[in-house]
Amino acid sequence: MSALQVLAPEGVPAITSSTELAAVLVPVLANLVWPDGSIGIDAGDVVVLSSKVVSKAEGRLVRADDREDAIDSESVRVVASRENADGSRLRIVENRQGIVMAAAGVDSSNTHAGTILLLPVDPDDSARRLRRGLAARLGGVRPGVILTDSAGRPWRSGVTDLAIGAAGITVLDDLRGTPDDAGRPLETTVVAVADEIAAAADLLKRPTGGRPLAVVRGMAHVVTQEDGPGARGLNRTGPDDMFALGSREAYERGREGLPLHD
Amino acid sequence: MSALQVLAPEGVPAITSSTELAAVLVPVLANLVWPDGSIGIDAGDVVVLSSKVVSKAEGRLVRADDREDAIDSESVRVVASRENADGSRLRIVENRQGIVMAAAGVDSSNTHAGTILLLPVDPDDSARRLRRGLAARLGGVRPGVILTDSAGRPWRSGVTDLAIGAAGITVLDDLRGTPDDAGRPLETTVVAVADEIAAAADLLKRPTGGRPLAVVRGMAHVVTQEDGPGARGLNRTGPDDMFALGSREAYERGREGLPLHD
Repeated sequence: MSALQVLAPEGVPAITSSTELAAVLVPVLANLVWPDGSIGIDAGDVVVLSSKVVSKAEGRLVRADDREDAIDSESVRVVASRENADGSRLRIVENRQGIVMAAAGVDSSNTHAGTILLLPVDPDDSARRLRRGLAARLGGVRPGVILTDSAGRPWRSGVTDLAIGAAGITVLDDLRGTPDDAGRPLETTVVAVADEIAAAADLLKRPTGGRPLAVVRGMAHVVTQEDGPGARGLNRTGPDDMFALGSREAYERGREGLPLHD
Repeated sequence: MSALQVLAPEGVPAITSSTELAAVLVPVLANLVWPDGSIGIDAGDVVVLSSKVVSKAEGRLVRADDREDAIDSESVRVVASRENADGSRLRIVENRQGIVMAAAGVDSSNTHAGTILLLPVDPDDSARRLRRGLAARLGGVRPGVILTDSAGRPWRSGVTDLAIGAAGITVLDDLRGTPDDAGRPLETTVVAVADEIAAAADLLKRPTGGRPLAVVRGMAHVVTQEDGPGARGLNRTGPDDMFALGSREAYERGREGLPLHD
């Protein structure tokens, strides 16, 4: 019987740009009490942390008045945009991290009044540094690390958490070639396992109240010794992208006789 | 400390159109051994089952030769399509269940040679019937039920599992109005909790090998006495949809002087 356990400890202190993340997380991790009675953290566990906390530790705060400029400078490409009922503008963009998301991931909640939060500059690098910091304080135990952000999705209501940074995680679990129950190889099943771990962790994490952290136990088969290439490999854009532009944007380019892509 | 436990029992028997699902699942559920040592299933647990198994129990098999016709008849609207390198056609459609997915969810793996599997006609109704069947055999214990399918996503590599049917589950967890850490109400955080539970369960479920089932414990706050409206509420299409058509399709309509939408 396969089992997964997820814990979201309370009491992670408020994070500021003077916080060393690994230093504040290690005492919390060391005191985890698992449903099966075991204590602490193991090498096969996955530490899942909201990227907002990482942004705060990295000082990625800017003035709220500069929100639109911040979205501009965090974006490499506008995919779609729309005027909201209140006159504000919703922009779906590809951001510098290679992720397509609303407002480039610029976040106005959970920050001090008058400030907004940008995503970490390189979330995979942030994950690697956090993993190194944890290992240094845990006697060489190297859990996997996933940094998350929540994002909306075309055609589905509500947000789910995604893995935007990762270290020591096989982010895509490739089941192709595994025989199916009729003995034929599975053809198309590559599972975005890092995104599914992020989603599982989000069931317990909360955007508020000192619970930006969850630890997942039972996925040791996707935790690797090497840090690996990280979550950037989960991004899929480029010439094959059937939704490289929003419907309205693509339609207007056709009407104006422009090529679909520049 | 919040905790989640997920179990994926082995030994779910092969399902055919003569199987009564609740009857074969109840002995498996009754024998669950949780990491904390408890046994069996509780009212606050969520039973997560691959919809493939439900399709088999409902006899939703058709001849593989009829695959393209089957996709046609399962679709209400083509969103985007593309020729694959092997000459086959990838079609992203809105299906009769209201879900936008590739090939309308018609699946060629894990079926007997020469056959393919359609999604359940009404997955929410299937979930409700399964829940009733479980409760009748579990002395009135009514766990939540989620039926899943895997789907690709724009801009992300790999597939993740989604909730395509649900009974007794608050599929969207509305956190709007909850104060954030700075004391301001969260504005946009509606979490697709049923999709996140589906993703968590998929970390242990497997498309092969008698493991189409997982049970999630620790989410009792989203398990409801009433069956509720189900997973259909997770679908988001209509006039507000910024990706109602693929880029190429929208572009061609503009070039041809057609309106964006019929």
